[in-house]
Amino acid sequence: MIQTPTLMRREIGEIPRVVERILGSPDIREVAGAIVAARPRWIAIAARGTSDHAAVYAEYLLETHLGIPTGLAKPSVTTIYGTTVDWGGGLVLAISQSGRSPDVVSVVTAAREAGALTVAVTNDPASPLAAAAAHAVDCLAGPELAVPATKTYVAQLASLAVLVDAIRPGTDLAPGLAAVPAAIDAAIERSDGWLAEAGARVVTDLAASDRALLVSRGYNLPTALELALKLKETCGLFAEAYSTADFAHGPLVLARSGIPVLAIRPDGEMGRLVDETVAGVRARGGRVALVGGRDVESAPGALSVAESLPEALTPLVYVVPGQLLVEATARQMGISPDAPAGLGKVTLTR
Amino acid sequence: MIQTPTLMRREIGEIPRVVERILGSPDIREVAGAIVAARPRWIAIAARGTSDHAAVYAEYLLETHLGIPTGLAKPSVTTIYGTTVDWGGGLVLAISQSGRSPDVVSVVTAAREAGALTVAVTNDPASPLAAAAAHAVDCLAGPELAVPATKTYVAQLASLAVLVDAIRPGTDLAPGLAAVPAAIDAAIERSDGWLAEAGARVVTDLAASDRALLVSRGYNLPTALELALKLKETCGLFAEAYSTADFAHGPLVLARSGIPVLAIRPDGEMGRLVDETVAGVRARGGRVALVGGRDVESAPGALSVAESLPEALTPLVYVVPGQLLVEATARQMGISPDAPAGLGKVTLTR
Repeated sequence: MIQTPTLMRREIGEIPRVVERILGSPDIREVAGAIVAARPRWIAIAARGTSDHAAVYAEYLLETHLGIPTGLAKPSVTTIYGTTVDWGGGLVLAISQSGRSPDVVSVVTAAREAGALTVAVTNDPASPLAAAAAHAVDCLAGPELAVPATKTYVAQLASLAVLVDAIRPGTDLAPGLAAVPAAIDAAIERSDGWLAEAGARVVTDLAASDRALLVSRGYNLPTALELALKLKETCGLFAEAYSTADFAHGPLVLARSGIPVLAIRPDGEMGRLVDETVAGVRARGGRVALVGGRDVESAPGALSVAESLPEALTPLVYVVPGQLLVEATARQMGISPDAPAGLGKVTLTR
Repeated sequence: MIQTPTLMRREIGEIPRVVERILGSPDIREVAGAIVAARPRWIAIAARGTSDHAAVYAEYLLETHLGIPTGLAKPSVTTIYGTTVDWGGGLVLAISQSGRSPDVVSVVTAAREAGALTVAVTNDPASPLAAAAAHAVDCLAGPELAVPATKTYVAQLASLAVLVDAIRPGTDLAPGLAAVPAAIDAAIERSDGWLAEAGARVVTDLAASDRALLVSRGYNLPTALELALKLKETCGLFAEAYSTADFAHGPLVLARSGIPVLAIRPDGEMGRLVDETVAGVRARGGRVALVGGRDVESAPGALSVAESLPEALTPLVYVVPGQLLVEATARQMGISPDAPAGLGKVTLTR
């Protein structure tokens, strides 16, 4: 068993302060002004790896709060197939922790030349990506030393939420944003308690399994995707995330006794849809751990956090207990989560 | 061991004739005319399950051949979050075998009301989806009785390729399309030979494993995604597909001895990028089976098919040997591939 605090654990602990810094960032408001002025008719988001999950969050956040059709860019259309896409009239948003992935830089360069408004969201304002885009948002996360991205992921989500709030003030984001740092502080404290009690069994289950399933839908689909990636890269588990909407199209048959399932269950209507999937998994003999809001408070073994936030902001909080769960599982497996064998911090994709 | 021919095997055998029917469809040209007239500035595609993989193919095909920014719709933005998206000026394309998924129908209804051009690609012209959209393309696949979709999937890809060829004549699609039925016939024959020789070891590896990885990139990313879903639903394997562009961001650590890897490897530059991932997997002790074009002809144990088609059409052919591989693996495991336990043919998602 690896002893804590690991670098990963320390960096998770910094998340509330990182979000506080982002809430006070004047730059984001400037970028928001440029987006409002450009009046984009559609939005495409380019990203890879963990940042791709921030991009999925951005898809839901932008489309739901701005009403603008939003999708993910496919960099190979530009870098490998050499297509000239008619990007004019749109917003191309690129998300990258390092700001150094060549394919994401290529998409932004091509989009800017074609007349799109381009915005980079990165943790390095001196990066090639920040230079390639017309505007850059600095995620202000500070240096991240552990290979698994934790604080930079939440910093990306928080930067995006502050950006959307600045573009369209007066939505549910405004009152919620100020409450996020304290909600994450509380989530860390509750997670530590949970991991020492009911959550210890989830850690044991994950550490003893070579497979896991993660499910959610909507705003928290990226939470499930990101935690599955963390379990892969840190613990070597075959952990796959699924939208509950796609689960009955096949993956349901994978749910069986001995395969741990983690469900991210927001309050409200979306949560009730997640419940249907959870019931289906349990009917097949699967064991499900729940992380969610007020609704799961009385569910046996569940972890309830972030109960007062709008659903659009819960991904900033729900992912944190998951990151702590992954960190604890790695240590229980005797793996240092800070530097998983075979992975580098920065990945350069053509 | 389940005896062949199964329904699934018979329906795979029908694919070349289905594609011939689609090549002669006059309806598709009419729908293409409506799209040309509307001059959409962006395209969003709505789908679930296997059809979602046809949607990923459509993303690459439309963006590369028409130069129009293309992404996937997120139905929950409409059905759960109740957002009014400004769909005006765009094309919303919905893909569904049954044409009955309520959430996909809801997206099309909302998009049509908001002023988008709406097109349904379905195997049932009398379905609610075909009725909801302004235009419908009939995939002409005939009844599909096995639960795993095979001929309807290739019928969707073929309908999309014929549609794009009709929207923009004179691309690489035109000469290639007529060659597809014979290429699939040849692929089935070669696959049968391969499964009796070198491929038999791949079947044995998959049947003995509870996990598998599938990799490709670009046009054949959906091939990898679709075959992973087939291995899940038919054989119960934890089979996950990855873009080789994302593989080094984490999933690479899953590649190790005893985990079968199937790489879909087109000819040309994209193929060379797939090779880099294959080399990385082999360096970690993983065993990789290759399905691809002319370039893999001399690779030991590889299956080479479709060598004369443009890359944009190879997904119609490369998926077929994979479907036959899945069918053979299910039979070797003593599973009837026609009706996997716990799954229905039509899935209705809110």
